[in-house]
Amino acid sequence: MPTLIESLGLAAGMLTTFSFLPQVIKIWRTRDVSAISLMMYSAFCLGVFLWLLFGIGIGSISMILTNSVTFLFAASILYLKITME
Amino acid sequence: MPTLIESLGLAAGMLTTFSFLPQVIKIWRTRDVSAISLMMYSAFCLGVFLWLLFGIGIGSISMILTNSVTFLFAASILYLKITME
Repeated sequence: MPTLIESLGLAAGMLTTFSFLPQVIKIWRTRDVSAISLMMYSAFCLGVFLWLLFGIGIGSISMILTNSVTFLFAASILYLKITME
Repeated sequence: MPTLIESLGLAAGMLTTFSFLPQVIKIWRTRDVSAISLMMYSAFCLGVFLWLLFGIGIGSISMILTNSVTFLFAASILYLKITME
């Protein structure tokens, strides 16, 4: 794959994966989960878990790594939503 | 690609894409964006836009479609966060 496209994928993966970290920190600091959608994070966690299985299926290290980290962040938000409300 | 893996990718893409819809609806109904992280949706929108360019770059119709729809949902949440707060 061309270097430009690989770089795009790397930048995209870093952004979408680590975008969830400020949301985790915000909830942790404010203890406010009122506006967070339980249905969104339930569906998103399941979806990312399936992307992880897909990554394992095609043997893609980058998909396995980014989806593992995204799953951890999204599952943390789901856990905070369930336990704080 | 084996049918099982293609099916996994399809299910994963539908879940992660449409998971944002209940969040858009929740914000629209409650007018509450207090717990939503501006930094998360700024980084996520940029990341999904780069995934869309990546999809165009590799010529993947499924990546172009799912990332276009995800971008619309995430940008809607970002817009609601900025205008309602």
